[in-house]
Amino acid sequence: MEDNYANEKINALANLLVNDYCKKRAIDEVPIEHIDRSIIIEIVKKIKMVIYPGYYEKNGDDQMYNTINNVAILLRDIFYNLNEQVSIALNFCKDNIKFDRKRNVKSEQIVIDFLNKIPKIRKYLDTDIDAIFNNDPAAYSKSEIIYAYPGLFAISVYRVAHELYLLNVPLIPRIMTEYAHNMTGIDIHPGVTIGEYFCIDHGTGIVIGETSVIGNNVKIYQNVTIGALSTKGGQKLQGIKRHPTICDNVTIYSGASILGGKTIVGKNSTIGGNVFVTSSVPPNSKLSFKNRELKYNFNNSNKKH
Amino acid sequence: MEDNYANEKINALANLLVNDYCKKRAIDEVPIEHIDRSIIIEIVKKIKMVIYPGYYEKNGDDQMYNTINNVAILLRDIFYNLNEQVSIALNFCKDNIKFDRKRNVKSEQIVIDFLNKIPKIRKYLDTDIDAIFNNDPAAYSKSEIIYAYPGLFAISVYRVAHELYLLNVPLIPRIMTEYAHNMTGIDIHPGVTIGEYFCIDHGTGIVIGETSVIGNNVKIYQNVTIGALSTKGGQKLQGIKRHPTICDNVTIYSGASILGGKTIVGKNSTIGGNVFVTSSVPPNSKLSFKNRELKYNFNNSNKKH
Amino acid sequence: MEDNYANEKINALANLLVNDYCKKRAIDEVPIEHIDRSIIIEIVKKIKMVIYPGYYEKNGDDQMYNTINNVAILLRDIFYNLNEQVSIALNFCKDNIKFDRKRNVKSEQIVIDFLNKIPKIRKYLDTDIDAIFNNDPAAYSKSEIIYAYPGLFAISVYRVAHELYLLNVPLIPRIMTEYAHNMTGIDIHPGVTIGEYFCIDHGTGIVIGETSVIGNNVKIYQNVTIGALSTKGGQKLQGIKRHPTICDNVTIYSGASILGGKTIVGKNSTIGGNVFVTSSVPPNSKLSFKNRELKYNFNNSNKKH
Repeated sequence: MEDNYANEKINALANLLVNDYCKKRAIDEVPIEHIDRSIIIEIVKKIKMVIYPGYYEKNGDDQMYNTINNVAILLRDIFYNLNEQVSIALNFCKDNIKFDRKRNVKSEQIVIDFLNKIPKIRKYLDTDIDAIFNNDPAAYSKSEIIYAYPGLFAISVYRVAHELYLLNVPLIPRIMTEYAHNMTGIDIHPGVTIGEYFCIDHGTGIVIGETSVIGNNVKIYQNVTIGALSTKGGQKLQGIKRHPTICDNVTIYSGASILGGKTIVGKNSTIGGNVFVTSSVPPNSKLSFKNRELKYNFNNSNKKH
Repeated sequence: MEDNYANEKINALANLLVNDYCKKRAIDEVPIEHIDRSIIIEIVKKIKMVIYPGYYEKNGDDQMYNTINNVAILLRDIFYNLNEQVSIALNFCKDNIKFDRKRNVKSEQIVIDFLNKIPKIRKYLDTDIDAIFNNDPAAYSKSEIIYAYPGLFAISVYRVAHELYLLNVPLIPRIMTEYAHNMTGIDIHPGVTIGEYFCIDHGTGIVIGETSVIGNNVKIYQNVTIGALSTKGGQKLQGIKRHPTICDNVTIYSGASILGGKTIVGKNSTIGGNVFVTSSVPPNSKLSFKNRELKYNFNNSNKKH
Repeated sequence: MEDNYANEKINALANLLVNDYCKKRAIDEVPIEHIDRSIIIEIVKKIKMVIYPGYYEKNGDDQMYNTINNVAILLRDIFYNLNEQVSIALNFCKDNIKFDRKRNVKSEQIVIDFLNKIPKIRKYLDTDIDAIFNNDPAAYSKSEIIYAYPGLFAISVYRVAHELYLLNVPLIPRIMTEYAHNMTGIDIHPGVTIGEYFCIDHGTGIVIGETSVIGNNVKIYQNVTIGALSTKGGQKLQGIKRHPTICDNVTIYSGASILGGKTIVGKNSTIGGNVFVTSSVPPNSKLSFKNRELKYNFNNSNKKH
């Protein structure tokens, strides 16, 4: 095969594709300005440097965190980059009703308002670290939780993204929480409301839908879904409460699903592993599968390897 | 401890390891030519730039996507790198029967054939974006889906890898879908057949096995398995249909498992959360757990925090 | 908005944050020396180059793996970097009782002891590759498993981290396994004991808790939890066996949960999909859900799309 053959085929395909891009389908809506996912991920990392001073610096650094001037340098970097992405995102979504009312608010003010939430975010995260440490005998230090625990990673990114969501910033909060989802398998929508002392143990496979409300001292294990009962209504359900309310001091064990916007799990309740809940549960309940559901058979012969 | 001590120990270990590499176990089969996983991931990213024009460019770029010449430059880059990896992969697996019959097809022709599938891939992905948007009230725009949704990420990579799989390229399609698996927790084998308007919501923890066949308008939630009933037959089962067929308009809720090569889920059926299916389900079925399986206990005293 | 406004606000926030860092909460415990997660991940990648010679090199490299001198160069690189991180970790956790007794062991000796475990790690991993290949008809070669399978990725990192855990190195083993958890959705605590021929198929959503003991020839599917029955005892349970023992030749299908430190799954047993086990299972058992638990409804009309 000669190079000419490949070149000809490639040029013909390029021609075909440029025409394909003009078919006015969703996939052809080429954005003029571009949100940059990699810049947003960098911003998240820098915000984590502000939240957890000292944990993300290289040895030999001039200890960025311990003078006002150094912290200000880091904040200005975040301000500059986040402001650019927010202004693109606001323009990008200017025809979306939800965000339209915010059209007149300058992105600078939004970013300043967001940055001022960092002390509040740190206050909440401090309680989350406490909750994870107190619940997990496998945690040998709180530093281990900050360095290694995917649960704290996902909660940290959620608490940051949630403040941007409350400021009606489009796209960016979701890109942030989906980055955490990529990293951890924990999918907390930025619209969720979560109280203090939130503990995720292990974390893989967790989904918490947009309109969920979670109280204080709630503990959630791996593969738990707090989701919608059905989304057949599709876009018509936008803004309606579709996900459960979980009251204070509730523990939800691995594999359980709690579904529906009218479902309330009362305070001090425990939801057992793999349990499937689609209606409200009274306070102080302990919900589990009955044992007799299981069927035992015995192999007559040893399984061969 | 002196440096000499460490050096001596390291040299002795190096000696031991070079001998260890000669034991002719699977772990000692050192490849002479090397597939480069990081190059394959770069190729996937560039193919996504062709599929979703404008979404992955930096601001200030010369709008790569809008002239035939610029698209051709990007395609030539993909052609050059993919051709190199495919030719290594074909050689690497030359003793494998499945791929042997393709030994005489030049890798260039395979890559050209693959590139010409891109318009078809875009046509399918456009329907997938539609399906996700229409099903998810938490999606505020189709752009949000392209930028942030792990479901679309995994489906995009699967649709690309599937075309290479159909062209009998070894190793590379699986490396591509396992990259998406890494990023999203969604494991779609490149051998799966999937129709139009495929919707994955949330996505974490999904497994879809190699010989599954999925119709049009199918919706799948997190932690769903479409898998084999048993793989005790091991390598002897290669090429046999081991995974289910899911007909048109089926919805499968979170945590459900559907297993077995003879299992057919009939059209318009709904499989409820955490349901375990190992035999066929007639069309228009609605399958769910009975409520009475759950056991309620009530705590006499409030749980202490 | 003038730049002065933003600058003023940022300086005020920097001032507030530096005070916030002095509140002596967990989140304010700024480490003086810093474990560097990215260096630890680089070390893992280099150890994988030693374990799987040839698989992670670029074409054109001078075949690092085939002379004693070249292997020694790679080992010295690992030794230098790991020694630095281990010495920080030992100091970092010097007040922790578990690690305190090791205070007098020099980090160099620990790292040398660890490196000498690599041939043993390779011996185990060779059996794991065999087990995965023999169990999975979708595996077309053992190379495919080494290049692409998340199960082998997670087991490889676990077997490395486990040896550091046995040498009482704090923090680093967990950072390693959580890196694998990030990449694969498979969370194997470095404290777990696992025999030969361990097979993880698919892998997403797996959790195996710290004090689990797993025999030879065990096969585990996606979304399986081998966990604690309850962790309400929190830190008081540290060091106590909280997780199950899985005997030889056991298969655990997708979505099953096996919980509790006194739970023993007897040899040659099969645990069916989504089954929830909280007490011991005798040898040769086959445990599954009864079929009659499911409720069938039929839609009277076709579901509209």
